[in-house]
Amino acid sequence: MRDVAIIGVGSTPFGKLERQGIVEMAVAACRDALAESRVPREKIQALYLGNFAGERLASQGSLAAIVVNRLGMSGIPATKTEGACASGGIAFRLGVLGIALGLYDFVLVGGVEKMSSAPTAEVTAALATAGDETAEMRTGLTFPGAFGIIMREHMARYGTTRAQIGLVSVKNHGLGAANPKAQFRKPVTLDEVVSSRLVADPIRLFDCPPISDGAAAAVLCPLEMARDFTAKPVRVLGTGHATGPATLWESADVTTMPATVRASREAYAAAKIAPADVDVVELHDCFTIAEIIATEDLGLFPKGKGGAAVEEGWTALGGKVAVNPSGGLISKGHPVGATGVAQIYELVRQLRDEAANQVRGAEIALAHNLGGTGVVSTVTVLGRA
Amino acid sequence: MRDVAIIGVGSTPFGKLERQGIVEMAVAACRDALAESRVPREKIQALYLGNFAGERLASQGSLAAIVVNRLGMSGIPATKTEGACASGGIAFRLGVLGIALGLYDFVLVGGVEKMSSAPTAEVTAALATAGDETAEMRTGLTFPGAFGIIMREHMARYGTTRAQIGLVSVKNHGLGAANPKAQFRKPVTLDEVVSSRLVADPIRLFDCPPISDGAAAAVLCPLEMARDFTAKPVRVLGTGHATGPATLWESADVTTMPATVRASREAYAAAKIAPADVDVVELHDCFTIAEIIATEDLGLFPKGKGGAAVEEGWTALGGKVAVNPSGGLISKGHPVGATGVAQIYELVRQLRDEAANQVRGAEIALAHNLGGTGVVSTVTVLGRA
Repeated sequence: MRDVAIIGVGSTPFGKLERQGIVEMAVAACRDALAESRVPREKIQALYLGNFAGERLASQGSLAAIVVNRLGMSGIPATKTEGACASGGIAFRLGVLGIALGLYDFVLVGGVEKMSSAPTAEVTAALATAGDETAEMRTGLTFPGAFGIIMREHMARYGTTRAQIGLVSVKNHGLGAANPKAQFRKPVTLDEVVSSRLVADPIRLFDCPPISDGAAAAVLCPLEMARDFTAKPVRVLGTGHATGPATLWESADVTTMPATVRASREAYAAAKIAPADVDVVELHDCFTIAEIIATEDLGLFPKGKGGAAVEEGWTALGGKVAVNPSGGLISKGHPVGATGVAQIYELVRQLRDEAANQVRGAEIALAHNLGGTGVVSTVTVLGRA
Repeated sequence: MRDVAIIGVGSTPFGKLERQGIVEMAVAACRDALAESRVPREKIQALYLGNFAGERLASQGSLAAIVVNRLGMSGIPATKTEGACASGGIAFRLGVLGIALGLYDFVLVGGVEKMSSAPTAEVTAALATAGDETAEMRTGLTFPGAFGIIMREHMARYGTTRAQIGLVSVKNHGLGAANPKAQFRKPVTLDEVVSSRLVADPIRLFDCPPISDGAAAAVLCPLEMARDFTAKPVRVLGTGHATGPATLWESADVTTMPATVRASREAYAAAKIAPADVDVVELHDCFTIAEIIATEDLGLFPKGKGGAAVEEGWTALGGKVAVNPSGGLISKGHPVGATGVAQIYELVRQLRDEAANQVRGAEIALAHNLGGTGVVSTVTVLGRA
């Protein structure tokens, strides 16, 4: 396998982007990544694009092929990948494999979602399709409901407190306030989080990410060619992609996501590192409790200690391992198909010392993308080249 | 690159499958393919699943991950691919590359679509998302409308006659009548085709495929391992995947699809064959005129001669090259995401001498899958191993 480098990234701001359609957002992020990489578009040999529900929420399918056309790159193979909220992470991994296995030399990867133009009830219904419809979601369960069950169980099993969980939101909103791409730019207090509107008991409004529009992109090439294009290539040290239970009732323990555990083990093994080597993480905080569980499943903290880790400040900027310095899904926003690639965007900036909330001297970065209640996960480990 | 073999295939019947949901259909086809391959499910290392509009028409996303769970294979990476009507062809090509490049030894590929449970107007709207929404489809154009424009142009430019085009439907319905998996099992006359209900002038009802449910699957492994599992492996000789114009107004000539031309050239070059070497073809007859154009773009007949080829019987069973012996999309049915894999199912049976409409002594087979009005295409060349 060849070593792979990221030589350019791009991202729209995340939020309610009223003037931009789904194709326009994807094109804007791709153009930014291409410009930054200085790779002429004629050299790009393939596009992998993550998107969840374009057909449903934006009346747009065939998205990867349409985006290459709008980029003036018609002809090259274009593939849209879908794995709910992990759609972008899957696209990124396929791009990395395309270079690593020698199929291509220059690959464009993107992720996009347009959500704000659909009615909220339709967005909720579309998001619910990430679960197993006949086996679970048909009962009326929603994702806030599912993560409410998970949150209760984590609290009961490990003594995790409402305050510890709420502090995830305080941390992420605080960090997002400094991120110019973030949807929410305002700090919140713990009191505001725990007294915010109840969504699905015990999940409250500030435990959730917003409905977002946005896109992100990255240009990949073999590491050996990277310095022809940029002085600061970022190296892909390892990737992982795994599945886990599709429903809560099939999970032996809802406080752990086997897909995250498997994908991270695969990525750590490929990168030849241990969890303790990681300096900065962008992980899938689709709810506050999901961040705590992910830090445990990724091996950053022992099982059941993720809540205490937040309280101790270990996941803050300047802590043992900075978690979600971008503000995470909760503050930066969560345009579903874009999220996995936006995590890469943030971590590339961290490893180039260009991040809004810079983790000083960060050498090893990890991205964690999750679909549904853990039905699929991707993990990527990046390092300075 | 390693040589790749297909060692098992499966397919549901195509049609209105009222008792089967989208997950159940995909699982049924995968189980059949696994059983035929005699590969124990623990050996399967990845699933690639083609699906177009599951989130919209069947309220089911995360489909690949959910299907591996239902198959009892939770843990392995699972990827859903979407490229409109070419979703299945893209999934198949990714599976082939996974083996060819040495990433995996045993891969499961599937394709599925559930369409009959949604209202017809919603199906039409979902299908229209395969086109560029803001650049073309928003005007109100539908796919029958688009192919009506293409049909008129082919008739005007090359003198292709209404009778020649209608004979595609007569041939395919005649062949489908003998295919136990086909949705329509009844021959039609030319008079019935050209006097059937007008859909989008000059496209009539019998120029179109039906709304269908169905799934298909295949098991792949390195050719060198194939005979451990089956006495009749089928070899993948070459694949291609390309994009083309997303709209009719951006097409220099709407009577040719550059994506088909590019994808087929790539597949022929990999297979080291010429179009004249092909004995049997399953191609994307999403409308009767699309079959004629595809036979030209694939190089089976000169440009403008596809209509005459049908009239001469050259594409019939026993003709120069048998086209759509399964009955094609028009008669077998067109569950969008399943079609590309169902073509592989049919051709594997042809190369094992097991097809309902067997092409005697067929040695080289070609599958052609198309998205939209040619925005994306995949081509696969298969041979006896």
